Amino acid sequence: MALLIQGGTVVNEDLSFIADVLCEDGKIVAIGENLSTAADVEIVDAQGCLVMPGGIDPHTHMELPFMGTVASDDFYSGTRAGLVGGTTTIIDFVIPNPQQDILEAYHQWQKKAEKSVADYSFHVAITWWDDSVSEAMGVLAQEHGVNSFKHFMAYKNAIMADDEVLINSFKRARELGAICTVHAENGELVFRLQQDVLEMGITGPEGHPLSRPPEVEGEAANRAIEIAHLMNVPIYLVHTSCQQSADAIARARANGQRVYGEVLPGHLLLDDSVYRDPDWSFAAAHVMSPPFRPAGHQEHLWKALQAGNLHTTATDHCCFCDPQKRNGVDDFTKIPNGTGGVEDRMHVMWHHGVNSGRLTENEFVAVTSTNAAKIFNLYPRKGVIRVGSDADLLVWDPKASRTISKETHHQNVDFNIFEGMNVQGINTVTISQGEVVFRDGEIKVEKGRGRYLKRPLFSADHLALQKYSAQRLSKPTIREPS
Amino acid sequence: MALLIQGGTVVNEDLSFIADVLCEDGKIVAIGENLSTAADVEIVDAQGCLVMPGGIDPHTHMELPFMGTVASDDFYSGTRAGLVGGTTTIIDFVIPNPQQDILEAYHQWQKKAEKSVADYSFHVAITWWDDSVSEAMGVLAQEHGVNSFKHFMAYKNAIMADDEVLINSFKRARELGAICTVHAENGELVFRLQQDVLEMGITGPEGHPLSRPPEVEGEAANRAIEIAHLMNVPIYLVHTSCQQSADAIARARANGQRVYGEVLPGHLLLDDSVYRDPDWSFAAAHVMSPPFRPAGHQEHLWKALQAGNLHTTATDHCCFCDPQKRNGVDDFTKIPNGTGGVEDRMHVMWHHGVNSGRLTENEFVAVTSTNAAKIFNLYPRKGVIRVGSDADLLVWDPKASRTISKETHHQNVDFNIFEGMNVQGINTVTISQGEVVFRDGEIKVEKGRGRYLKRPLFSADHLALQKYSAQRLSKPTIREPS
Amino acid sequence: MALLIQGGTVVNEDLSFIADVLCEDGKIVAIGENLSTAADVEIVDAQGCLVMPGGIDPHTHMELPFMGTVASDDFYSGTRAGLVGGTTTIIDFVIPNPQQDILEAYHQWQKKAEKSVADYSFHVAITWWDDSVSEAMGVLAQEHGVNSFKHFMAYKNAIMADDEVLINSFKRARELGAICTVHAENGELVFRLQQDVLEMGITGPEGHPLSRPPEVEGEAANRAIEIAHLMNVPIYLVHTSCQQSADAIARARANGQRVYGEVLPGHLLLDDSVYRDPDWSFAAAHVMSPPFRPAGHQEHLWKALQAGNLHTTATDHCCFCDPQKRNGVDDFTKIPNGTGGVEDRMHVMWHHGVNSGRLTENEFVAVTSTNAAKIFNLYPRKGVIRVGSDADLLVWDPKASRTISKETHHQNVDFNIFEGMNVQGINTVTISQGEVVFRDGEIKVEKGRGRYLKRPLFSADHLALQKYSAQRLSKPTIREPS
Amino acid sequence: MALLIQGGTVVNEDLSFIADVLCEDGKIVAIGENLSTAADVEIVDAQGCLVMPGGIDPHTHMELPFMGTVASDDFYSGTRAGLVGGTTTIIDFVIPNPQQDILEAYHQWQKKAEKSVADYSFHVAITWWDDSVSEAMGVLAQEHGVNSFKHFMAYKNAIMADDEVLINSFKRARELGAICTVHAENGELVFRLQQDVLEMGITGPEGHPLSRPPEVEGEAANRAIEIAHLMNVPIYLVHTSCQQSADAIARARANGQRVYGEVLPGHLLLDDSVYRDPDWSFAAAHVMSPPFRPAGHQEHLWKALQAGNLHTTATDHCCFCDPQKRNGVDDFTKIPNGTGGVEDRMHVMWHHGVNSGRLTENEFVAVTSTNAAKIFNLYPRKGVIRVGSDADLLVWDPKASRTISKETHHQNVDFNIFEGMNVQGINTVTISQGEVVFRDGEIKVEKGRGRYLKRPLFSADHLALQKYSAQRLSKPTIREPS
Repeated sequence: MALLIQGGTVVNEDLSFIADVLCEDGKIVAIGENLSTAADVEIVDAQGCLVMPGGIDPHTHMELPFMGTVASDDFYSGTRAGLVGGTTTIIDFVIPNPQQDILEAYHQWQKKAEKSVADYSFHVAITWWDDSVSEAMGVLAQEHGVNSFKHFMAYKNAIMADDEVLINSFKRARELGAICTVHAENGELVFRLQQDVLEMGITGPEGHPLSRPPEVEGEAANRAIEIAHLMNVPIYLVHTSCQQSADAIARARANGQRVYGEVLPGHLLLDDSVYRDPDWSFAAAHVMSPPFRPAGHQEHLWKALQAGNLHTTATDHCCFCDPQKRNGVDDFTKIPNGTGGVEDRMHVMWHHGVNSGRLTENEFVAVTSTNAAKIFNLYPRKGVIRVGSDADLLVWDPKASRTISKETHHQNVDFNIFEGMNVQGINTVTISQGEVVFRDGEIKVEKGRGRYLKRPLFSADHLALQKYSAQRLSKPTIREPS
Repeated sequence: MALLIQGGTVVNEDLSFIADVLCEDGKIVAIGENLSTAADVEIVDAQGCLVMPGGIDPHTHMELPFMGTVASDDFYSGTRAGLVGGTTTIIDFVIPNPQQDILEAYHQWQKKAEKSVADYSFHVAITWWDDSVSEAMGVLAQEHGVNSFKHFMAYKNAIMADDEVLINSFKRARELGAICTVHAENGELVFRLQQDVLEMGITGPEGHPLSRPPEVEGEAANRAIEIAHLMNVPIYLVHTSCQQSADAIARARANGQRVYGEVLPGHLLLDDSVYRDPDWSFAAAHVMSPPFRPAGHQEHLWKALQAGNLHTTATDHCCFCDPQKRNGVDDFTKIPNGTGGVEDRMHVMWHHGVNSGRLTENEFVAVTSTNAAKIFNLYPRKGVIRVGSDADLLVWDPKASRTISKETHHQNVDFNIFEGMNVQGINTVTISQGEVVFRDGEIKVEKGRGRYLKRPLFSADHLALQKYSAQRLSKPTIREPS
Repeated sequence: MALLIQGGTVVNEDLSFIADVLCEDGKIVAIGENLSTAADVEIVDAQGCLVMPGGIDPHTHMELPFMGTVASDDFYSGTRAGLVGGTTTIIDFVIPNPQQDILEAYHQWQKKAEKSVADYSFHVAITWWDDSVSEAMGVLAQEHGVNSFKHFMAYKNAIMADDEVLINSFKRARELGAICTVHAENGELVFRLQQDVLEMGITGPEGHPLSRPPEVEGEAANRAIEIAHLMNVPIYLVHTSCQQSADAIARARANGQRVYGEVLPGHLLLDDSVYRDPDWSFAAAHVMSPPFRPAGHQEHLWKALQAGNLHTTATDHCCFCDPQKRNGVDDFTKIPNGTGGVEDRMHVMWHHGVNSGRLTENEFVAVTSTNAAKIFNLYPRKGVIRVGSDADLLVWDPKASRTISKETHHQNVDFNIFEGMNVQGINTVTISQGEVVFRDGEIKVEKGRGRYLKRPLFSADHLALQKYSAQRLSKPTIREPS
Repeated sequence: MALLIQGGTVVNEDLSFIADVLCEDGKIVAIGENLSTAADVEIVDAQGCLVMPGGIDPHTHMELPFMGTVASDDFYSGTRAGLVGGTTTIIDFVIPNPQQDILEAYHQWQKKAEKSVADYSFHVAITWWDDSVSEAMGVLAQEHGVNSFKHFMAYKNAIMADDEVLINSFKRARELGAICTVHAENGELVFRLQQDVLEMGITGPEGHPLSRPPEVEGEAANRAIEIAHLMNVPIYLVHTSCQQSADAIARARANGQRVYGEVLPGHLLLDDSVYRDPDWSFAAAHVMSPPFRPAGHQEHLWKALQAGNLHTTATDHCCFCDPQKRNGVDDFTKIPNGTGGVEDRMHVMWHHGVNSGRLTENEFVAVTSTNAAKIFNLYPRKGVIRVGSDADLLVWDPKASRTISKETHHQNVDFNIFEGMNVQGINTVTISQGEVVFRDGEIKVEKGRGRYLKRPLFSADHLALQKYSAQRLSKPTIREPS
């Protein structure tokens, strides 16, 4: 059945305009004023509301096995919570164990993701290196629609990629036409600082930020960017949390390099005082890496987002409940790292970004949806309201407000880092694949309706955002030794 | 009659895709693959070619009275040359004399522009200040579609605006919802350095860059940006020519401020050695302000353009023939300042920008057309291939090439700063207002067919690029003196 | 009579070492371990203490007529308070009224200063321009030992120097071999913002920082530095109070320019919350220009001082008592601008600089004494413990502590911005001109004992810190017009 | 016998003044005008000349076994050449093989150095890590006067220190009170790029700079600095050769960190065109790491030196003759890395630094002698003309000139990278340990007269330049888990 969103203001990255939007077969088929309606069209009234592209969260970890436990939101509960909050697409991560067959891991994750209720895609992490990994990257890229590879520069003795792995993987990604992403923290420094902090007798969550200061992230960001520069591949930094790494991105971009940065609402809004809260559970619930930062960094990140030196917002959604967090009750290095947010990102960004005057509504669409679609080559299927695009749409009421709480959220976790935050600007209807899945506070979805999104490789002349710089090495004339 | 551009690759800022484009009544009415053709449709074959939005040159000076003479290209010859080169819209400048009635000047320029053959609009310069000027700004903004005001920080004892004028005008523009633009050079320093250089016995064109070093521009750029910051108004810097001013823009943008920068192909490609050429006429033909810069600045400007710290390309098209230039044969400060380029901008930018790998084709569209349309509020009427937009289109053959020369150009001037440059990537057809005006090397236009473009004012929630930051001044509680 | 400081650790800028210091006739005549003592030598026991060069405060305003009143500390009370606190030399300012004869003003100030009890010198302000001013600069420089000229970029309609005055004066200073100093605030912006703030109904001291935001200072700093760059003269920025101007200095220095920056302890330690204090008198007592800055700037200034991008510490000592401040009870723009501190600078800098680990004891000597002596060409007469130098010395007990208070200070003012601050590290003995003037909390001085210090002009090859860069303008071959 | 240098201008870092200098027993015993002369005093006439502290070259490699051969200048010929050129002290490097006992290596180098004719000291390289290395560092620091440890971030599969080694060694140095130095190039990237370049068929010296681009150095510099920051130890970067690493230093210094940078005259003056010379031997003679850089970097390094972001000049003196260089005739990666210069540094720096107006004579002394003495804790024994200091002195004739050439130099190598450079400003007399060793072009020294210089460890309150920042980790209150 067709669906007509009537009377709203369509908000795209480039423009806002009043128009109806007609959807059929999961696609947008017409955009215009006063579209005529056939008898069998379902009507969504958007009067007084904004109609925006569904959110894309390019960084989630549903049911991730990590630090001895498994993330509490699975692909069903997690994508469902996302739909409630206005996120219609996620990009999750396949994370092979060191020495594990990469393709085997990929298929494990595909299996887990079958129960998704929103569309999804996968980045694949490169956690070790040999020729088989190189070959598997080719198979993933050419047969399975994986155009982005992730590298953890932290987590020594686990999934950390050292410079040799980074260089090999970046070079291979370049050959394939894929983009590289990194978790930028110097794992050697973290390892040492964790020991130093524990030796000082600090075992609680307050030790977490002490063991991962901003410099640890800034160093790794700078290093990954330089390696990408020399390997001539575009790079994307996940969860940029501090001035040091935002500045590293800004420096490289000012030099003409293709570097992209992601930021989480939590890093934009919370500071590291949460780790010194007298309530252990409260403090531990905020343990994620990189940690929330000292006051001051937040404003710097907002400016980087306004300036276009940061491009996307994500959540690194990776939930652990208090009993899981308590694995680290005697040792903060054993607290499972992760916080939630897939349901809250859009609302928090609107309230603190748009209502504050920092971002326009068009910029909001860019940083919550369009930029991620462009950077990861889902555009224009996703990220824009355009004839031919997937009908993933939100009806957003900028006047309504509500309070975020773990009591009412749909995420499968017993904590919310935005607890009690009153936000104005509410998602009232979510449309996914041309179907109303959320309206009037009700979510109605069938398990497994989410589709895997293959993402094509980049070619030199394909997408604006993926331009490769010219090859630097040219062969000079070789002399004969005299 | 309708017009169908068939079989080309449509290139917009955000995306390239294969589609036909159908135009009627001067507008684009359909975009799609294999559009069916009625009998009376004129066909333009674009097989193997790119179909791009017509160029917008946001900085021209047709028939400008300046330094005792008048620019040799008038609104007819200048806009005609623009159409040949792929520029379908210009924004020229109304420049009142100090103490002249602003509206009177506006009407003088409108009179001159009646013979235009391409669409045009006007920035209006604020060259002095009193209440009548403030009032006239309101009339221009609200009745005549002027949403941008220009300020010359150079040209002391002529049209220079000092800080007091800048502050008053910026504040007024903010009230109205207009954008401010500046020619950034410290006029007091230029005045002093001109005298110093003349006193050293340097009277030839080689004295021109000595009297206007990059620091003179960098200082003024920084000052204008800070004033705009405090007056809370967006600002646009014309002809950014050097590292110093590009860095000033980058600093402000990194701080979240809405600052835009324009760059000329000449500043991207030529260096100041031209002024030391033994041929006086050759050297004098390059005299413009700001001057071409020492080697090294050019690469920095390219990087700023790639990084998004510069946004538009323009020409400052202001032609003077050799006999006019000879007014300054004994004194370089009397050489009429100006060079041409409205016909060459698109080709030079494609060749050196896209063929070199610095810019993608989509970024080319952004910096030659879309960004100017957005910044000056002509979007989406101009700057994009979209249903409902003006049918200003180019058919671009990326394989063809030709050589730029004053012998063959259509500009009414006896010199070309790009003389002898072989460029690959050629505009083969220009469509303006839905009409083929240039094809097969032939330009066919009727004098006066160009239309004046009113540009609406900006509102806080209107256009993404024109977002005003939140008001900084808030009123704290006032105490009673104890 | 000779004076022997025995058993202390001599602390110079470059080195600390244990030595006795012997003084005769106002000079240091010997430095060494176990200097033998003649019968008639007065002994100062410095065991366990540091012996340091007397402080130099390069920025004071004793009995300045300003804003309708006169600063409450005169040259007697002010220099006396300085001696108590360890400052043995001040450089004050001759500030002619616009149109006033510069030499006349100079003599007025010399008259006022006759009652000084510490050595003093004068910067002379250039507040207007014509040929007589240029000539007077020459007389001052060549006959009266004035090698530094001051320029106020703020205080419109009073002593403000616009760009034309700056350029003329800087060029003249360059000819003479003098250094230029500036108070960097854009006076046009301040003027406008003051009116805007008053129009909002804000009349209390909380309006003061709103009318002089950091950008106003950063802009002016950048402008003055660029003018100095082009006029090829070294420049010194007084009271650098914010990140913006510290960054402008750092940028210029990184570019090889000779730029020096001064910072006040108040700007290093206080933030702008003082202006929002409910007690009007408390708030008004802090009104000075530039104002204290939002939290965050202070740490940035400390880093600039550590990095060597700021060089000296001063006080801008200019006291007004509460009844004087009340001139502005209905209008913050009428509150006399100024705070005290000549007595407290050394102690506050030691406590917060050295005890905190930010500065070494040697760096403390540099930023409180040596650097000022070098920059203003008093070195090595002042600023170092060296045979032949003036015997201006402190005996500093790093273990003792005391509390700063208006109740106990010797400054003639009813307020102290450091009230209640407990500082560790105390000046126990002040020696001026080889004479013990302060010991055991007792100050004993004869009015008028202070001497005027002539400061020689700089020559290209004279002093390391005053190196002029090579002349940039060179004359290229002039062609014959063809 | 005593030695009196008569009638010269003494030039120290802080001041120039006319004075005689009297030396006895290898020390300076008096400085003053018209010092009276005993009968048995040898007189050196310095009329019209400058008397300066002998140069310190903090970076040499005499008779280094490297890349299958041994550097051609040994401790005798190398220190002798240094004395001719005005360098009276060198600091060389003990470089243990991986797994070699560190103390064993130290003693090997001490043995080789016995034939030195100038005073010398040693940095010791940490090329691997286990507890025995940690222990050996303690022995070296506490018993052998080694206060600086070197780390090679390049030379994979040889002496490269990875992050784990850096962290361990930096932490240990911090405990001991030593300073860390690094050769900053990312060895993993170099290794990969070398292979890539060879695979392209580039085997000549032109491949050398292609395999070690500036980014490789900038990345490593930034990384080492951040590790030093977190390990809280001062750091010194040897042979800073490009904008990228100079900027990394400047950023850290602006942040208050204690970072020092060294630059070589070759990097200040030569560019990478030397590697594309058609004469293989000429090109290969310039092969050193990091390589000479593209035009543009040189000016940036000069500015960093003027700005105080670089502190010392050294040579990395490591000579190989053409037959040695020919080991790499078929493969540039096998060309022994190294160039000479210990004899030329002072003259090249004076000519291009002082004569050009970039540096004052006092700054020349700082960057060729005093700063190295301070940073490596030889001050005031070395680096200054001061009573009690070692009598290492130069008599410098600023008017004389000569031409540098391998035909006339005393270095034991068949090439000179400054061949044919005419320099004005000549060392006419070298005094070492109070003895005239070079005069009238004649060098007269006895083998083995050089002395090993122990350098004391730094303490927190010792030397201005070696201030450690306060410990960042503080222990917050630990909560009880609820």
